Amino acid sequence: MISPTRDYHARIEGPSSDRPAQELIEAGFAWEIADAAVLHHGLNMADFGHVIDLHHRGIISDSVARQVLGVLLKIYHTDAAEFPYDPQLGEAYNSREQYVVASLGDVAGWLHAGRPRREAARVALRISLRRLTAELLKSAADFAETASNIAARHAETFMADQTYLQQAQPSTFGHYLLSFVPPALRDAERLRTALSQINESPGGAGCVNGSRLLGDRAFVADLLGFDRVIEHTRDAMWQTDTFIDLLGTGVSLLSNQSKLAEDLEIWSSQEFDYVDLAGPYTRSSVLMPQKRNPYALSIIRGGSGMLIGRLAGFLAVVKSPSARSDNLIFAYGEIPRALEYARKVSDLTRGVVATLVVNEARLWKALENGFSQATDLAEHVMLECGVDYRTAYRIVGDAVKAASRAGRRGIDIDVETIHLSAQRVAGVELSLDPDRLAAILDPKQIVASRSSAGGAAPRVVETMAAEYGASARRLSAQASADLAKFAQVEKDLLCRVEKLVAGC
Amino acid sequence: MISPTRDYHARIEGPSSDRPAQELIEAGFAWEIADAAVLHHGLNMADFGHVIDLHHRGIISDSVARQVLGVLLKIYHTDAAEFPYDPQLGEAYNSREQYVVASLGDVAGWLHAGRPRREAARVALRISLRRLTAELLKSAADFAETASNIAARHAETFMADQTYLQQAQPSTFGHYLLSFVPPALRDAERLRTALSQINESPGGAGCVNGSRLLGDRAFVADLLGFDRVIEHTRDAMWQTDTFIDLLGTGVSLLSNQSKLAEDLEIWSSQEFDYVDLAGPYTRSSVLMPQKRNPYALSIIRGGSGMLIGRLAGFLAVVKSPSARSDNLIFAYGEIPRALEYARKVSDLTRGVVATLVVNEARLWKALENGFSQATDLAEHVMLECGVDYRTAYRIVGDAVKAASRAGRRGIDIDVETIHLSAQRVAGVELSLDPDRLAAILDPKQIVASRSSAGGAAPRVVETMAAEYGASARRLSAQASADLAKFAQVEKDLLCRVEKLVAGC
Amino acid sequence: MISPTRDYHARIEGPSSDRPAQELIEAGFAWEIADAAVLHHGLNMADFGHVIDLHHRGIISDSVARQVLGVLLKIYHTDAAEFPYDPQLGEAYNSREQYVVASLGDVAGWLHAGRPRREAARVALRISLRRLTAELLKSAADFAETASNIAARHAETFMADQTYLQQAQPSTFGHYLLSFVPPALRDAERLRTALSQINESPGGAGCVNGSRLLGDRAFVADLLGFDRVIEHTRDAMWQTDTFIDLLGTGVSLLSNQSKLAEDLEIWSSQEFDYVDLAGPYTRSSVLMPQKRNPYALSIIRGGSGMLIGRLAGFLAVVKSPSARSDNLIFAYGEIPRALEYARKVSDLTRGVVATLVVNEARLWKALENGFSQATDLAEHVMLECGVDYRTAYRIVGDAVKAASRAGRRGIDIDVETIHLSAQRVAGVELSLDPDRLAAILDPKQIVASRSSAGGAAPRVVETMAAEYGASARRLSAQASADLAKFAQVEKDLLCRVEKLVAGC
Amino acid sequence: MISPTRDYHARIEGPSSDRPAQELIEAGFAWEIADAAVLHHGLNMADFGHVIDLHHRGIISDSVARQVLGVLLKIYHTDAAEFPYDPQLGEAYNSREQYVVASLGDVAGWLHAGRPRREAARVALRISLRRLTAELLKSAADFAETASNIAARHAETFMADQTYLQQAQPSTFGHYLLSFVPPALRDAERLRTALSQINESPGGAGCVNGSRLLGDRAFVADLLGFDRVIEHTRDAMWQTDTFIDLLGTGVSLLSNQSKLAEDLEIWSSQEFDYVDLAGPYTRSSVLMPQKRNPYALSIIRGGSGMLIGRLAGFLAVVKSPSARSDNLIFAYGEIPRALEYARKVSDLTRGVVATLVVNEARLWKALENGFSQATDLAEHVMLECGVDYRTAYRIVGDAVKAASRAGRRGIDIDVETIHLSAQRVAGVELSLDPDRLAAILDPKQIVASRSSAGGAAPRVVETMAAEYGASARRLSAQASADLAKFAQVEKDLLCRVEKLVAGC
Repeated sequence: MISPTRDYHARIEGPSSDRPAQELIEAGFAWEIADAAVLHHGLNMADFGHVIDLHHRGIISDSVARQVLGVLLKIYHTDAAEFPYDPQLGEAYNSREQYVVASLGDVAGWLHAGRPRREAARVALRISLRRLTAELLKSAADFAETASNIAARHAETFMADQTYLQQAQPSTFGHYLLSFVPPALRDAERLRTALSQINESPGGAGCVNGSRLLGDRAFVADLLGFDRVIEHTRDAMWQTDTFIDLLGTGVSLLSNQSKLAEDLEIWSSQEFDYVDLAGPYTRSSVLMPQKRNPYALSIIRGGSGMLIGRLAGFLAVVKSPSARSDNLIFAYGEIPRALEYARKVSDLTRGVVATLVVNEARLWKALENGFSQATDLAEHVMLECGVDYRTAYRIVGDAVKAASRAGRRGIDIDVETIHLSAQRVAGVELSLDPDRLAAILDPKQIVASRSSAGGAAPRVVETMAAEYGASARRLSAQASADLAKFAQVEKDLLCRVEKLVAGC
Repeated sequence: MISPTRDYHARIEGPSSDRPAQELIEAGFAWEIADAAVLHHGLNMADFGHVIDLHHRGIISDSVARQVLGVLLKIYHTDAAEFPYDPQLGEAYNSREQYVVASLGDVAGWLHAGRPRREAARVALRISLRRLTAELLKSAADFAETASNIAARHAETFMADQTYLQQAQPSTFGHYLLSFVPPALRDAERLRTALSQINESPGGAGCVNGSRLLGDRAFVADLLGFDRVIEHTRDAMWQTDTFIDLLGTGVSLLSNQSKLAEDLEIWSSQEFDYVDLAGPYTRSSVLMPQKRNPYALSIIRGGSGMLIGRLAGFLAVVKSPSARSDNLIFAYGEIPRALEYARKVSDLTRGVVATLVVNEARLWKALENGFSQATDLAEHVMLECGVDYRTAYRIVGDAVKAASRAGRRGIDIDVETIHLSAQRVAGVELSLDPDRLAAILDPKQIVASRSSAGGAAPRVVETMAAEYGASARRLSAQASADLAKFAQVEKDLLCRVEKLVAGC
Repeated sequence: MISPTRDYHARIEGPSSDRPAQELIEAGFAWEIADAAVLHHGLNMADFGHVIDLHHRGIISDSVARQVLGVLLKIYHTDAAEFPYDPQLGEAYNSREQYVVASLGDVAGWLHAGRPRREAARVALRISLRRLTAELLKSAADFAETASNIAARHAETFMADQTYLQQAQPSTFGHYLLSFVPPALRDAERLRTALSQINESPGGAGCVNGSRLLGDRAFVADLLGFDRVIEHTRDAMWQTDTFIDLLGTGVSLLSNQSKLAEDLEIWSSQEFDYVDLAGPYTRSSVLMPQKRNPYALSIIRGGSGMLIGRLAGFLAVVKSPSARSDNLIFAYGEIPRALEYARKVSDLTRGVVATLVVNEARLWKALENGFSQATDLAEHVMLECGVDYRTAYRIVGDAVKAASRAGRRGIDIDVETIHLSAQRVAGVELSLDPDRLAAILDPKQIVASRSSAGGAAPRVVETMAAEYGASARRLSAQASADLAKFAQVEKDLLCRVEKLVAGC
Repeated sequence: MISPTRDYHARIEGPSSDRPAQELIEAGFAWEIADAAVLHHGLNMADFGHVIDLHHRGIISDSVARQVLGVLLKIYHTDAAEFPYDPQLGEAYNSREQYVVASLGDVAGWLHAGRPRREAARVALRISLRRLTAELLKSAADFAETASNIAARHAETFMADQTYLQQAQPSTFGHYLLSFVPPALRDAERLRTALSQINESPGGAGCVNGSRLLGDRAFVADLLGFDRVIEHTRDAMWQTDTFIDLLGTGVSLLSNQSKLAEDLEIWSSQEFDYVDLAGPYTRSSVLMPQKRNPYALSIIRGGSGMLIGRLAGFLAVVKSPSARSDNLIFAYGEIPRALEYARKVSDLTRGVVATLVVNEARLWKALENGFSQATDLAEHVMLECGVDYRTAYRIVGDAVKAASRAGRRGIDIDVETIHLSAQRVAGVELSLDPDRLAAILDPKQIVASRSSAGGAAPRVVETMAAEYGASARRLSAQASADLAKFAQVEKDLLCRVEKLVAGC
């Protein structure tokens, strides 16, 4: 029989004095320590900020502040790869703590006042992510600008656009390429919103309910260059929506680029021969001497798929109760790495586009040899002859079949062919004007007719490309300014620390 | 030997005259037809808009417009479930076409002028999604408002907040519950942005490059109540980022609610007994007479997981080249259904929260029996006695162990216990003031001390709850206004059609 | 202050008498009821089996058994679409229960003896899944057989196989197509193992710990045609690994077919023109009269992506604690539907392959025009001239560049060209025999040289195709036999029920 | 106008002589080089095997073989971290090639005869995976054995099993824990099948169609210890189903353990207090002195979610055309790392289970205080009084409500209470025997009644545990034997190489 108070009281509370199990070190601490390099800089900043905050409030003395910051400066000047991060001691925070203790003894203990390990890591994560987010944004915008420029250059590179990879209607390579720009700009805008939410301060949230020690949470937020404080302290510690949004937008960005990459991989086949990748984006085979493989495109597509997994994994991880550590332990390394890789892939896509060789003659020949003017022809038949579109469609469909069977091309369809088809499929007599027919069948004139908003007409494409390019430059410049601001605020913090340590 | 022109010309172009294979009907058309109910209303609107557009431009005559719209009105007044959608004919568009042909013969053929099937479906999808998005947004905001209200009511319902499901620090149920509100508000804001991007018009994009027939794309956009035209025509037809973003935010919203649901499921166990679900949200067992199962929470959590799959599936589908049909064929049903289900789940979560029974006495007892004041005690020791935090932590950790071993509670820790622990673990002599110690150990006073931004102090929680509630009401009202606007514009379009058919 | 016994005792236990909330009906019961059609047949079987089991043990009287089975027979003869499944009453089981109660009053209550609702649903799920699994297995095997047959027919249809979609080495369409068969056979074997695990009986597991009423669990297992009892009762109720495995294999199967579909979509472009889909697998455009779209391939690829989402969703759902309802509530409809759709897609792929038009002349021309014999040439240089492979590779690479620059083909490379290249890149003098060189450059002779295990030589492909075809037929026959066995056992059960009701 | 032969001939074929772009190095080569450590050992083995194969066939001379193998031996004796893998040179293979060239000059070029880089990597991947698969299998089996042992020890540790985390029926901790064993054993069996498919040789597949040089593919397969040759050469190079299956089973295994971990995390709360993790599996807080956090459980659950993402990512990556490099480039590092981490997590789960403190008294008290005997009571009422189960259920439900309202427990329900409830809800007079009632209400007697297959009765659990333990030991021993075999064959190969180099 157990006592009624057993439930809560006989249970021993407080830290275990046992050494961690080897399996725990391998599956847990070593996993976390592998992220130390990702968090190192952010942890340095977080610790600087926290100690200055404690000192500013008079919680720690000048002397303590100077001693602790002195050691932290040494850590700052140690590369993450050189710092003795050791999974035997726990995760990154523990190794840092141990280092300070080894230098200062008990004085090191002041570092932990008013702040859980979790808060340090949350701050570090955001300091890492704000830079990576701004870099990804910049990369997305730079891709958009480059693609706009190249698109403008190809506003008169005629080709048959495709659906189902079947030739559909006459268009231009410029119009095609430019279609990847608006999604990139939208994703860049989404990243701007996300960046603003990432660059908020969880500082001073305490364990979860706030802290009695750190009244004014704005102080440390300012020190660390955060735009504002995340108000609700439990939200500050545990929110995951911001990271889902960020990762989701990264996935979206690569998804768009992956489509382009797959198109280009198809088009750079010998059979299509529409485009060639520039040499620096290809790879040779070790076995096959004739090969020049579009390796860059494989990386873009595979990278896109890999990132889908990172998002799905994060979503599965956070399908957890609230305020459980697993919600974010697996985010510290996974999300920064995913964003950084997304940036690298996006840079690569930009490079591919910037240097792409477009085989204009081949594009034109494929267009000229096909039947992509059929829709315009049917619309012409409808308007000229007053038959409904479905009838016009059937007439033209029949004419196309007849022509293709006879080894003729779309531009070769003549008045007589249509006349016969009209009789055959609709029992009507149609007589078209040969000159107007020739004009209707001319791919260039068809493209020129697409002059309404967003269409393929060269002037429309050029105007759009200019607008998109300008938007892209603006976004890129803002991201650069953000990056400069983050660098400056971190430099200022370092200066402040150095002065304090020097006793000025 | 084949002729040099074989590559392009000998291939027969144009529609096949074969009947579709039975496997194609089952795997393809039947799959698409299953979405007819989802798209029916939107297709009605799209067709109304398109015919009025054609008529407005003089492409079709008054008589043709009247006839075609007359049949479309009949379709409009037919419930999707009653309409003869038939996979043998193809997807939904084909069944509708067949219906118009059966009514009008060749006149039906005018309906297709200047517009691919794809455009009709894209318009319909957006008409469906704008309503579903606004409804989801409203549901998210209503959840946020309800949770804010209930949180305010529990600003003084004391409890031990938890990390790792272990009691961490004294807090309140109000502070806890309110932490689910900022994520919901952020997701609602994301949905607002997404709604604005969804409610854009792909109309007049033609196949992909624009259309020679439909010069002014704004006309049909206005008719259908879209906020603006999607400029680039290929982007208008094929973009997927908007849908990824929308679905991702739906997943994020449910992810947040799923955490709450899992917390509540744990807390409604006999062992925790922190909360009871109201009867209407429970389900009995068929076998076990004592059971009252929190069924609603299972649905919320399972629904959240299911939606993760819908997002992962969509991302895998669109890992495709550009301008391939599969990119969006699988979106027509999947995304609207996913959003609608997300809305239902969110409504359910709101209902659960609105009616939740919170066992205040039990929450207090669990708090009172535990040791969640340990951090405050350590901070007190640090400040009072001038020892560093790590030392204070070790002293308090020892005191907690001693107390728990003796079957005593956190509030029972006395000056003597701490004195002994200080000697034992740090070799220091501490003498605390008994009255100040008692105050420090009092959970209510601890909570009151969390008075800085976002903390657990009752007044802070009440103020935050009021602000969040106001934001939520504003978002909900905007969503309601959007829904009313969509309904009105669709009603206006119907009126216009009716007048045109009536010949006024 | 609350009493010490409050924790466990003052909490009211037992079913709520409230009506379910409307949100619960919509998000919960309606979701489950939507699966009623999927489970209807299985629930009929489960109920038949359970009542006969109860009767067999003497728990219910002849009269009760006859009455209850009489009503169940009526349900059996009612189509799921006609049966009054009603979410207002709960999920499917509740509607059935209500129906029996409406017919029999209290006598209906015997149906629930010794069995939770969950067990009925688990049994029904497995009865549904065993058929769907066997059908999918059969479809996979039939695809493998068809592909083997078509491959054998094309053992001498020469083509350049590709990596990175760049021509790599001479091969045949038969060797290419046959490469999709071993994965399909492996997946079919995996499905066999999964089928054996699906067709096990959870019957008699009680709530979770077994049942005092139903001692011999083999009885009902035999009645329902299960191969054996799932031993551990809690495992029987809650296992998810079997479903993960089943769904994962379905995803794998479609993944393989999706690759084939994407290859074929590329190859059926005008530019490749390697293959044409038969008319019944294409779809015309409503707008573009020249189009004949390979619609079937879009469905295969999109279906594959959709299924990835179903798996990811199920995995996210079951990332839950054990023995929570959400683990399987969302499986009842999702998994059977996913498997059934996978089967439809697989049937479609088979149809596409069976009727595919392979443009042999075009394949040959592309091969003849390219440089895919470069590897064999380099190996020849290495062996003939005793230079290392890397040197030979560089010589041939240079020769290929020179030839392509001069507008010549691989088969046009002559002794002189190689001689010059050897001088240029390696400073060596090579003199090859012209006749042997011509043989080495002949794609057909190259293919013939691939005569070791699994190579592209026609005879090797024919032999492999025959073996794979035989394996496929064996698997298909076994699946057919399983399906027949399931049908028979269910028919026997029905007979037994009918006899019992008839009193014989 | 372009010439008719332009399509294929004017395009320049052959390797680019440009340096790779910096973005390509960062996103492509650096990504691949990061996997060098994973593949290093396997590449060593692959290269040993290939050179011996070439030598054995007389393609390379004794002298060449000795020289090349000599350098390869040096590489073998260099740790991957020390080897100059350099992304500037390409992926891992290129760095190795460069190293051999730097040592031997042109002689190095013989290494590439008859084998693409891809084949080396595919062989290396399988050599890595066979070990990791066997280790994961062993870990799964060891977990199963440990859990069986601990379960047997708790065959009489009574507790209320739960559904919806609500007390359901009396059971034991042993029966509960043992339910995680059959899934683990099934996954271990799946891994056995997967291991057999992983340990097959792609060697001699050439680029894709086989090789003219390497006729007998069994030779190198034997050298490398593969069980057999993967027959079809294109399948050998490009199959992905085997990896999907392997990764899927890893996910399944962790999914099962994650459920256990979440259960234990809930049960180790102060409120449940059912179990305590042993100290070495916990982690203290840096801020909160009273905390002893079940950190290991967070890792298990998070690891499980992370792995879901790895699977979803791989599936998204391979949603590609066939024979494209991205299909497997991203597999080289991702799959081995995922499997290795799964093994670490599984080892951790085993450690947690092996050392778990089960609070038997607390489990008993929770059982004793609840109403989990209600089902047995209803069955008793049904059998004793001849009422149908639904009626018995309603009577007992009412009795439970009455008792709980009165602050009484399930075991306190008396004849009178049931009598009143029977009158109230069913209008029947029931008179039960008090002694038999007491027996029916006794949780221990209820558990004892679960004596049929797989039930909770102690003897049944003990017998099952013994059987499962024996299966687990058998699986573990087989895995150990496989590991030993792989080590031996690799050692033998090394010996052969050393002898050859030494000229014996």
